[in-house]
Amino acid sequence: MTNDPQIIRIPSAQMQSIFTGILKKTGFSDTKAEKCAEIFTGNSLEGVYSHGVNRFPRFVSNTRDGYIVPDAEPSLICSAGAIEQWNGNLGPGPLNAVFATKRATELADDNGIGLVALANTNHWMRGGTYGWQSAQKGYVFIGWTNTIANMPAWGAKDAHLGNNPFVLAVPYNEVAIVLDFAMTQFSYGKMEVYNGEGKQLPYPGGFDRKGKLTTDPGEILETWRPLPIGYWKGAGLSLLLDILATILSGGLSTHKITEKKAEYSVSQVFIVISIKKLHNFPAINNSIQQIINDLHQSIPEDEATLIRYPGENINKIRNENLTNGIPVNKKLWNEIISLNSAPSSFAKASEDT
Amino acid sequence: MTNDPQIIRIPSAQMQSIFTGILKKTGFSDTKAEKCAEIFTGNSLEGVYSHGVNRFPRFVSNTRDGYIVPDAEPSLICSAGAIEQWNGNLGPGPLNAVFATKRATELADDNGIGLVALANTNHWMRGGTYGWQSAQKGYVFIGWTNTIANMPAWGAKDAHLGNNPFVLAVPYNEVAIVLDFAMTQFSYGKMEVYNGEGKQLPYPGGFDRKGKLTTDPGEILETWRPLPIGYWKGAGLSLLLDILATILSGGLSTHKITEKKAEYSVSQVFIVISIKKLHNFPAINNSIQQIINDLHQSIPEDEATLIRYPGENINKIRNENLTNGIPVNKKLWNEIISLNSAPSSFAKASEDT
Repeated sequence: MTNDPQIIRIPSAQMQSIFTGILKKTGFSDTKAEKCAEIFTGNSLEGVYSHGVNRFPRFVSNTRDGYIVPDAEPSLICSAGAIEQWNGNLGPGPLNAVFATKRATELADDNGIGLVALANTNHWMRGGTYGWQSAQKGYVFIGWTNTIANMPAWGAKDAHLGNNPFVLAVPYNEVAIVLDFAMTQFSYGKMEVYNGEGKQLPYPGGFDRKGKLTTDPGEILETWRPLPIGYWKGAGLSLLLDILATILSGGLSTHKITEKKAEYSVSQVFIVISIKKLHNFPAINNSIQQIINDLHQSIPEDEATLIRYPGENINKIRNENLTNGIPVNKKLWNEIISLNSAPSSFAKASEDT
Repeated sequence: MTNDPQIIRIPSAQMQSIFTGILKKTGFSDTKAEKCAEIFTGNSLEGVYSHGVNRFPRFVSNTRDGYIVPDAEPSLICSAGAIEQWNGNLGPGPLNAVFATKRATELADDNGIGLVALANTNHWMRGGTYGWQSAQKGYVFIGWTNTIANMPAWGAKDAHLGNNPFVLAVPYNEVAIVLDFAMTQFSYGKMEVYNGEGKQLPYPGGFDRKGKLTTDPGEILETWRPLPIGYWKGAGLSLLLDILATILSGGLSTHKITEKKAEYSVSQVFIVISIKKLHNFPAINNSIQQIINDLHQSIPEDEATLIRYPGENINKIRNENLTNGIPVNKKLWNEIISLNSAPSSFAKASEDT
């Protein structure tokens, strides 16, 4: 990425300050602008550009279009023991998600486990953000969101399922092990990158025009038939995650979200587990260490490859980006800069799917 | 299956009675023998032969070998609000799992959500059993188990991960939608069936001797390199499910179970959610109905195929097997019958992996 002349490096402090400024101009209070800017910058620092800097223009345009209500706060709908249902009131997805995670943590402090279901919220960007937040405080996190329909059911040709990202996180060595994955084998964003570079996917990622599995990202972007992870298994998991998010929150399903003009008013679930009162609490970190040590003893297919746990590489990427700046496409960065001066010209151009 | 001369049909009442008799001779109390026989027969009735009748001889031999302690009861280790940790004391897996599900349900009645983590238990056979039990009573179920190492990490050649089956279930139309899947794309049992019939798998299911993805089940059974669902994603999910089962229960990890002579003393998690007090409870079934209606409107690739939700076909299979008897391999059935008369001759012959 560093050798690509289209890529420039932006210091994270500068990125965060520019994001903050733009959000303030877009109707966000100072505090909310700062919090959102921090999350977008943090996701970029940790290498998740697709849900960091690359998605920032869309976040702004969605706010201008009224899909995201910058000053909305979640409101409690129902309290049922260790479960709470909240209405996100179309507030900014990352702020609602931080709130829901915090509330689920408080419920976990009281009950061992807490579940917050959030209706009528917005894209949380990188689900892993909330997994990291929980795990770094010593909690287990399980969460997921539904999305618009962007993946066919198994054996079907048209999209009726979302890719419904799912997150599992555990605390480990004062950092975390965080799994954050969507139900499509490759994200649309990743397939667009491969396609732009004229490359084939490393593994089949969907179906071509003839209904055959293909590694050609261009064909999949045309058929809109990405492959669910594990074929029928990932399709089933997507369906169940959507049903659970919908019924637990009382919010909209993938099907209902897809009827709207844009992806907003999604449903999310945040489960936090406190491990502090478990009988084996003092031994937990050691127990994870043993599992990771064993994983690391795997014999790699390619001798140069390290077998890693999910999130193992994050600190390295973070440190690299802290030192060298966050890599950003020059054109995209210019677009972002222009959001400060020409507030309405960018909206369509920067849409991605 | 019905036209195969090796397959006979056994009425479910007869199967259950024979299972009960054998288990009584194997050290199970009358009640426990009846309950286990009911679960093994029920799994077979619903078409999950691999974890019903086909696995029964191994359940008996594992009991005779001392891995399963027929009269052991779970004991409470730690109570932390809506979470409880129990020691399965190596009792019969299905009975421990029924107990843990019931206890998690009681915790959910009190707290909205309940989590029971079970250490030192045994194979629960078909995880879906406990999903069905919960959902049919109107509860949401999320559960998983760890296993011995039987799947390599992504990019690795040797097995350090379990296939750790995962279950999600929701109540629906007085029945249920139940997803029950392991982290390998195809089970070893299924690959053996394809191999025995000289058939290729419908999709790549693992790696061949050259390290390439293959549809040849024989090669995968040789390399012991089955494919995780979604490649790196399923491998990550397997790792996190193992870590969670291990730390929440205080029990053994996949790594530790693999050091033993046989797969026993596994760790499991049972989460039950009560939806009765949710503000949208009266609308929940209708909300699921809308999601399923939308799913059913998918355009199938093959016009003759119906796009179904997980578990949709179960009642049909159940009714067929109730009417015609449960299909069983003749040789296997004779082996089972012989367990009544020749209690120690079968153990090795009927082992499967």
